[in-house]
Amino acid sequence: MDRVAIIGASMTTFGDRDAWVRELLAEAGDAALRDAGVEGDDLDHLYVSNMASGEFEGQTGVPNALAHDLGALGAYTQRVDQTSASGGAGIYAAWQSVASGASEMTLLVGGEKMTHKTTGEATDVIASLTHPVEYKHGVTLPSFAGLTARKYLDEYDAPRESLGKVAVKNHRNGVDNPHAQFRKEVDLETVLDSPIVADPLRLYDFCPITDGSAALLFCPESVAEEYADDYVVVSGIGGATDTHVVHEREDPTTMQGVVESSEIAYEMADRGPEDVDFAELHDMFTILEFLQSEDLGFFEKGEGWKAVEEGVTERDGDLPINTSGGLKSKGHPLGASGVAQAYELYVQLLGDAGDRQVEGDVGLACNVGGFGNCVTTTILEQP
Amino acid sequence: MDRVAIIGASMTTFGDRDAWVRELLAEAGDAALRDAGVEGDDLDHLYVSNMASGEFEGQTGVPNALAHDLGALGAYTQRVDQTSASGGAGIYAAWQSVASGASEMTLLVGGEKMTHKTTGEATDVIASLTHPVEYKHGVTLPSFAGLTARKYLDEYDAPRESLGKVAVKNHRNGVDNPHAQFRKEVDLETVLDSPIVADPLRLYDFCPITDGSAALLFCPESVAEEYADDYVVVSGIGGATDTHVVHEREDPTTMQGVVESSEIAYEMADRGPEDVDFAELHDMFTILEFLQSEDLGFFEKGEGWKAVEEGVTERDGDLPINTSGGLKSKGHPLGASGVAQAYELYVQLLGDAGDRQVEGDVGLACNVGGFGNCVTTTILEQP
Repeated sequence: MDRVAIIGASMTTFGDRDAWVRELLAEAGDAALRDAGVEGDDLDHLYVSNMASGEFEGQTGVPNALAHDLGALGAYTQRVDQTSASGGAGIYAAWQSVASGASEMTLLVGGEKMTHKTTGEATDVIASLTHPVEYKHGVTLPSFAGLTARKYLDEYDAPRESLGKVAVKNHRNGVDNPHAQFRKEVDLETVLDSPIVADPLRLYDFCPITDGSAALLFCPESVAEEYADDYVVVSGIGGATDTHVVHEREDPTTMQGVVESSEIAYEMADRGPEDVDFAELHDMFTILEFLQSEDLGFFEKGEGWKAVEEGVTERDGDLPINTSGGLKSKGHPLGASGVAQAYELYVQLLGDAGDRQVEGDVGLACNVGGFGNCVTTTILEQP
Repeated sequence: MDRVAIIGASMTTFGDRDAWVRELLAEAGDAALRDAGVEGDDLDHLYVSNMASGEFEGQTGVPNALAHDLGALGAYTQRVDQTSASGGAGIYAAWQSVASGASEMTLLVGGEKMTHKTTGEATDVIASLTHPVEYKHGVTLPSFAGLTARKYLDEYDAPRESLGKVAVKNHRNGVDNPHAQFRKEVDLETVLDSPIVADPLRLYDFCPITDGSAALLFCPESVAEEYADDYVVVSGIGGATDTHVVHEREDPTTMQGVVESSEIAYEMADRGPEDVDFAELHDMFTILEFLQSEDLGFFEKGEGWKAVEEGVTERDGDLPINTSGGLKSKGHPLGASGVAQAYELYVQLLGDAGDRQVEGDVGLACNVGGFGNCVTTTILEQP
């Protein structure tokens, strides 16, 4: 079967942006089209990954607005929502559109506008994705993260410092990412002394509230060279859910959706975790980088923290994780994040990552919705 | 290529339901699974068509909740939003999931809970899909409909009564649909004397605010007989946009998205409008039934109204339209409507439509988002 190629990509600067989501989507979408020399009216399908433009801005129908702004009249448009994994879900939708033969040119643009809301307001919108029973008891995603981190540290004798080192590493990477929200190193003391949010997690264990957008352009590999000298292929992709009621999980330190979605992606790519050269993981909270690095099969259960302590996941380590700075320092505009993860893999695979460039032919991105309620795993490779 | 089959379908009663969207989705989803004897954990993919559970109920992440409620843990889930065409977009997503090989068993459930809001509040949520410039000037979808109806009547010398006859016909059909919100005939006088909403359109030219859900179960045709004695196939499907700024359209009485999406669907099915035996059109406003019946190629431009006057679109006519009662009498729970259109085609094709049964092997559904901003057209056939 003809594989699906990505022939263009872009992301906007992430951070506090003086622009509505429509404008952010158009900025990234237009840049991805220009990256490949494709016009809006060449698009067959146009997908928008976005969780909550209605709740954040009182604006719905943004895919139609984007089709208009990009001159993509006639293209089929649709919004893809899978909460904080909307971006990864958008990649899956775009992949399916090309793999099914429905589209020969699909643009995916993910984006969210959040910073005009207070952190409390934004957290409330996000918490509306939790199970009503848990929500009624005041649960938010940060509170789940605190409980899970406590259990992980206890169960695997991991030091609190190891979590802090995830933040330190990802901030260091973010310094070299011109699109990152925070381009500022932090030291371990700053992280460990920052205010408690959900014990044992502190302010620097959390990603920020962010505005931003990112875009990817897909077509069948058989025609990719007509548009781009360099391109990458989606060699594997899969998605899976876990229980929506988080307290029903047998082992809260295992994200079953990560395990199952990656199994599907590995099988499709005919790859295993040992083949992955670098990865973008969903470090909405530092603890999640440990869990995913284990559930993806990179490290044994309970040993993800040791990899961070030993520098394995640094840019000069054996398996660099979150070279982009991750959600932690790059920022987390919900619908954009999964798309921006793949953007990082794309520029790394093409050798365009500048000061943060690492070596490798196979990159993996893991995008987590809710608290692992739904996950997509994507493997990108050089052709 | 292996075609995509629909092996199970269901819809809930539409109307004023004492249930949240989660419950409505579970009700329809469970019934569709039982229709085919399939278990929740047999599902590879699970799509939810829903426009605005966040705005209507303060609840997001409903696909994850539904996966939980149906015992479909492990299935990949995602929400599909294309405003009032979310249902048709969901059919397209489900079709792509099977046609691409990503899924061998996909459940689509569309639903919306709206009646706990006032008509004004619900209309406001829907109006948030319009272009900001038009929205700021107070535009709502009913106001677009009024302007378009006036132009149509003037341009094609159509009598006001012809619009009323759409409502009369669809209410008559709804009487025989046990799931319809209004099972009540109305006479032409009642329609023509009802209060003006957007001149020349009156109350009975509009669909109601509705709660409800509908579901379809998809798999490759090659395995359909393992699950169901009777099934239908998706022989053609396509989607397309029109300008998001409605006042930029060259001819407001032509819905370009209907024209283009149907061209794609006809080509894929190797069919033309003359092959269609019955159709479900998006009669959110009576005028839309005329426009679509022309833009789909059933009748010449400006002659859709004559077909209604002459009884062609009645159940005993040559081309029955909206045998279900249409959105007008069946109701219009946004995310459910496109799915429920296909449900009607399914039961008609299987000969299960009871008192409203018509003859034919080929059915077409046209689902319109916004004011034609994005449209999907689906053709279902007996295998």
